[in-house]
Amino acid sequence: MSVQTKATIASFGGKLLKLTHHASTTNCEMAFNLYLPPQITTNSLHKSPLLIYLAGLTCTGDNGAEKGFFQHAASEKGIAVLYPDTSPRGLKIQGEDDAFDFGSGAGFYVDATRSPWDKGYKMYSYITSELPRTVFENFKQVDSERVSIFGHSMGGHGALTLFLKNPGKYKSVSAYAPIANPSNCPWGQKAFGGYFGEDDKAQWAAHDATELVQKWSGEPLDILIDVVGVPPFPPAGTSDNFYKQGQLLPENFVKAAEGKGKVNVRWQDGYDHSYFTMASFADDHVAHAARYLLA
Amino acid sequence: MSVQTKATIASFGGKLLKLTHHASTTNCEMAFNLYLPPQITTNSLHKSPLLIYLAGLTCTGDNGAEKGFFQHAASEKGIAVLYPDTSPRGLKIQGEDDAFDFGSGAGFYVDATRSPWDKGYKMYSYITSELPRTVFENFKQVDSERVSIFGHSMGGHGALTLFLKNPGKYKSVSAYAPIANPSNCPWGQKAFGGYFGEDDKAQWAAHDATELVQKWSGEPLDILIDVVGVPPFPPAGTSDNFYKQGQLLPENFVKAAEGKGKVNVRWQDGYDHSYFTMASFADDHVAHAARYLLA
Repeated sequence: MSVQTKATIASFGGKLLKLTHHASTTNCEMAFNLYLPPQITTNSLHKSPLLIYLAGLTCTGDNGAEKGFFQHAASEKGIAVLYPDTSPRGLKIQGEDDAFDFGSGAGFYVDATRSPWDKGYKMYSYITSELPRTVFENFKQVDSERVSIFGHSMGGHGALTLFLKNPGKYKSVSAYAPIANPSNCPWGQKAFGGYFGEDDKAQWAAHDATELVQKWSGEPLDILIDVVGVPPFPPAGTSDNFYKQGQLLPENFVKAAEGKGKVNVRWQDGYDHSYFTMASFADDHVAHAARYLLA
Repeated sequence: MSVQTKATIASFGGKLLKLTHHASTTNCEMAFNLYLPPQITTNSLHKSPLLIYLAGLTCTGDNGAEKGFFQHAASEKGIAVLYPDTSPRGLKIQGEDDAFDFGSGAGFYVDATRSPWDKGYKMYSYITSELPRTVFENFKQVDSERVSIFGHSMGGHGALTLFLKNPGKYKSVSAYAPIANPSNCPWGQKAFGGYFGEDDKAQWAAHDATELVQKWSGEPLDILIDVVGVPPFPPAGTSDNFYKQGQLLPENFVKAAEGKGKVNVRWQDGYDHSYFTMASFADDHVAHAARYLLA
């Protein structure tokens, strides 16, 4: 469970650590970034809660750390931020680097059950268990009892599903432009078909945010979701091309969540699927997590 | 003086425009970014001041726009931000793409006098005259009477020299880790030797911030400079490798500026020469400009 520090970069008064470790779930060396806020780096007795950011297709742990602007509010509020990679790397599985939406950079935060992907495409176990355990063991000032999660696009799917599958594990969840009903969109169908097989629809349902929220019977939800467009559904004049392609389907999630609590879907007119959108609303997403992490 | 809009991206409530135009000073098509704050984009009668950000070696107008987080405070304060490129592109001058510190990406914000560079390496005229004129003609809501300037490294050199050479033209100036005395550092000597020739020391002095501030006889200065390290000079344990190489020499600038007003040099311990540093102090630099632009 040891980690190697590749770089230590000052950021908003704290430290952004570029780290690697050998992960047994994913069967390879994994890189990730961890932001330690100044409350930790200047006071060895302070413990900070942890906010996990799951990135989208093609990304690594660097995109959010460089362009998400999450450290701005995390620094102020004293929250550590974990930026994992989006898949195993270099497993030499045939075809793993052939497409942007499957294999490398596209782990979808599920545990593959179908060969050959089951040899390391275990991002669900990696994110919910091995990686945070590694962080808590190596960074004692990060509080394992206070963890929240959020993400973008494929990472929004990851954040919603990990939250809904593990009641109580995460204090809060939010998402930008999430893939909200993967069983019914091309990206999700390709990923779930590849990682689970076409026939194992039970696995599909067990990793589909819309299916999961429909069955939710826990505490009333309080989910923040930023999507691009102008209400009502379907949005008029959205500038998120992936929404237009039917990849995101937040409307299905919202409908399935009716009566389960609050799903605060904010329509951000004129924005797109890029990190300019993440940065623009970064303070809000960190504030949403902070209300629970610092309660 | 017409501009082409390549993309319009929502950012912090305003619009980031990716633009190109044909520039006669640089003799080529130039790309630049312009951030229009929400005060402009939502009110056609509003005029906003302009803050020009000059980037460092190897950069384009994209680095600051994507990683600098200047839009965060610019949005709040209603300031437009202009992100120019750092050199002409594609002039097909022999050797222009051979080095990171000369030619493409390294225009140094001077007007070259030596052949063949004088055929388009006219970034001083481009930044002080042609580009802002183009912006003001095409975007009437950007106020030509209220302009400030700042920059990083080579762009810090550019910001300081353009400010000091043109009393009254810019309302304020600030810099991150500027090349502060180019005549006495390897980067500056290579650039000035190449663009002006080894012998024309009058041109060297006319573009050296330390020489210029020594001769300053205008209003008392109020310059904000962030450098990396722990005072006194030379800094103990700085993590800015370019400072250690003697490329920046802010101490020479500070000494030459004695008695000329306020040069607020802030030592940022633990930071480096990257955009993580720009982002961390972005709000401060925009606030420094705002005190003058919105006075």
